[in-house]
Amino acid sequence: MFESILKNVHEKTPLVHCITNYVTVNDVANILLACGGSPIMADDEKDAVEITSICNALVINIGTLNERTIATMFKTGKKANELSHPVILDPVGAGASKLRTDTTFKLLEEVKFSIIRGNISEIKTVYKGSGTTKGVDADISDAVTEENLDETISFAKELSSKTNAIIVITGAIDIVADSNKAYVIRNGHQMMSMVSGTGCMLTAIVAAYCAANPDNHLDAAAAAVSAFGLCGELAYEKVVKNDTGTSSYRTYLIDAMSKLDAKTLKGGMKIESR
Amino acid sequence: MFESILKNVHEKTPLVHCITNYVTVNDVANILLACGGSPIMADDEKDAVEITSICNALVINIGTLNERTIATMFKTGKKANELSHPVILDPVGAGASKLRTDTTFKLLEEVKFSIIRGNISEIKTVYKGSGTTKGVDADISDAVTEENLDETISFAKELSSKTNAIIVITGAIDIVADSNKAYVIRNGHQMMSMVSGTGCMLTAIVAAYCAANPDNHLDAAAAAVSAFGLCGELAYEKVVKNDTGTSSYRTYLIDAMSKLDAKTLKGGMKIESR
Amino acid sequence: MFESILKNVHEKTPLVHCITNYVTVNDVANILLACGGSPIMADDEKDAVEITSICNALVINIGTLNERTIATMFKTGKKANELSHPVILDPVGAGASKLRTDTTFKLLEEVKFSIIRGNISEIKTVYKGSGTTKGVDADISDAVTEENLDETISFAKELSSKTNAIIVITGAIDIVADSNKAYVIRNGHQMMSMVSGTGCMLTAIVAAYCAANPDNHLDAAAAAVSAFGLCGELAYEKVVKNDTGTSSYRTYLIDAMSKLDAKTLKGGMKIESR
Repeated sequence: MFESILKNVHEKTPLVHCITNYVTVNDVANILLACGGSPIMADDEKDAVEITSICNALVINIGTLNERTIATMFKTGKKANELSHPVILDPVGAGASKLRTDTTFKLLEEVKFSIIRGNISEIKTVYKGSGTTKGVDADISDAVTEENLDETISFAKELSSKTNAIIVITGAIDIVADSNKAYVIRNGHQMMSMVSGTGCMLTAIVAAYCAANPDNHLDAAAAAVSAFGLCGELAYEKVVKNDTGTSSYRTYLIDAMSKLDAKTLKGGMKIESR
Repeated sequence: MFESILKNVHEKTPLVHCITNYVTVNDVANILLACGGSPIMADDEKDAVEITSICNALVINIGTLNERTIATMFKTGKKANELSHPVILDPVGAGASKLRTDTTFKLLEEVKFSIIRGNISEIKTVYKGSGTTKGVDADISDAVTEENLDETISFAKELSSKTNAIIVITGAIDIVADSNKAYVIRNGHQMMSMVSGTGCMLTAIVAAYCAANPDNHLDAAAAAVSAFGLCGELAYEKVVKNDTGTSSYRTYLIDAMSKLDAKTLKGGMKIESR
Repeated sequence: MFESILKNVHEKTPLVHCITNYVTVNDVANILLACGGSPIMADDEKDAVEITSICNALVINIGTLNERTIATMFKTGKKANELSHPVILDPVGAGASKLRTDTTFKLLEEVKFSIIRGNISEIKTVYKGSGTTKGVDADISDAVTEENLDETISFAKELSSKTNAIIVITGAIDIVADSNKAYVIRNGHQMMSMVSGTGCMLTAIVAAYCAANPDNHLDAAAAAVSAFGLCGELAYEKVVKNDTGTSSYRTYLIDAMSKLDAKTLKGGMKIESR
């Protein structure tokens, strides 16, 4: 099943419109190409609403939000809703400032999101309306562990029920949940946290996977999370082999995504459903 | 002849002012350094007009245009015209939205461009006033092939005559044309399309080559296109040799440009004039 | 001593708020992670003042300044001053346009900077109020050499006395000075000038080092300059070994920073005090 999800991405080359931060935007564009999609970035209101119309999915990432781009997020999100495109929210740093938290909540009120992806602190902020996000990284006290896993799964399902969106929580253990079912994914490597933008990249991959698999967003999102985590593992093997560092790791990560095939994905997925 | 064009770039280190999109701006800066030029980015009206005055060429790339930067494009383009600097237009996504198409046409009315570089769909939009651009990539139905090559060359020459600009159409086969003469260039590799921003990078290289070779923009542009295509071939050889992927390919591409010498260029050019 | 400075960075993981240009912002984020810090970028007034409050240092880099971000620089700088966070100024291209020069001077009037880092032309502009900056690179006539070293050290000390900031001048020879003492650092490699953003990256590293070593900004800044220069040397060795080019060099540079330990730093520092 997960293999066919990947094949659909490769065959359909979904065009993903990203309103995203300027810090990691280039990596987002390149990982979209690497995973089989195609990127387009547009954040001016007059441009973006029309651009989203020719696309297959929309990513709204609030990483370096400003007044101008926030307005575009709302207008474009509504347009994508009209067209029934999947819309994916990445609430970068929600909880770290009032503007980020407020924007996240207003977006959730006015735009229907298919998927919300964040670290555990950001997702808790989405749930509680306030958060303890340490900048753009998750607060250590929030970390998903084997001990609090059951509780976190329940929380994710509840939040999915509340928002009507699939919830993707990423960290050492990843959770992908709708209101009924959750996947627990143990792919990935901690070196991913040493590269800026791995969260942003994953959000874009999730968008491409969901755009190419409209009938099954839950499995598509889970496949995307697992695929990217697997690439993180393969990239780490190359860092060890070549005795390199974090920048090479970023290169290997995108390389791995560009070479990932269905067989490798099937063999490498560490996923269970709950 | 083409070797002396490359040598002029290396000797003169042309300073290229880029008003360009934030997706690929870092690669644009680094490929300019790699090819022997020097980059400077400035997009605020109060800053950019003055910055363009100390430069040797101006790139206007509409990739992530907005109201503020559009105003800067016009003012800066006119200033560069006053100073007789070469001005290069990259109409990214023209045809994909009204704002992009309209901005392209207004720029063509008010600014004199030395060179216009785009994919075939973008260039057709420049010609026809409407387009079928699929996001920022060329529409497959537009592709330049051996079958429609003669026709496309005629079209390029006609558009050059109409705009008084050298026309650079890039894709599997590249065309560089003024109203009288066209070069057909068969360098390059399809993996270039798997890296975000290869078009933007080429536009900047063309700017550096033309700035350093003011008396012969047609040959300079052709040398730039061929040089970058050749680097694309050399980079592909390294991908095969090292069994890597698309992100390594980007690194190899810029590496190759930073090491390209006149002899390698002469030996590797696949160019004919029509 | 310098080893303990590096260890403090690794142990404290200082969170550095960067208002920086969009050309090199991704490298700035990744080098901050690589050196042991953590980056956050925010440039909207409503967001940035609050974000700076949760951080340990603030970088103000004027590389692609505009009206909106300039306003944020002032408000955020003042907030950081209130909180006694170290604030680091990178006056990119000061001297190249009136807006850049004027903004630099107004910032120096209204914000207290702990450190000012630039190339010699930018720093001369800060001193004299006008400059000969060639775009974003130093003017060759300004270069710090063994012949004018004593004079330049005196100049740096005087400027430090005038601004109450530590002055960091980088180039073939680096100088880090307060009003009483200067370090002369001979680490680094000329290939660093072939990569866009090495100056911006260093500014961010200096911020992380100073944030983690609040009692000794002079030594912390010197350690940061020497550490980055040493990484430039190690990266060059890899370029020679692997016969690669400027883009690989950038990767090796960040890799080296991510692997730098106290022992390597101690063994590789080329530093003298004057």
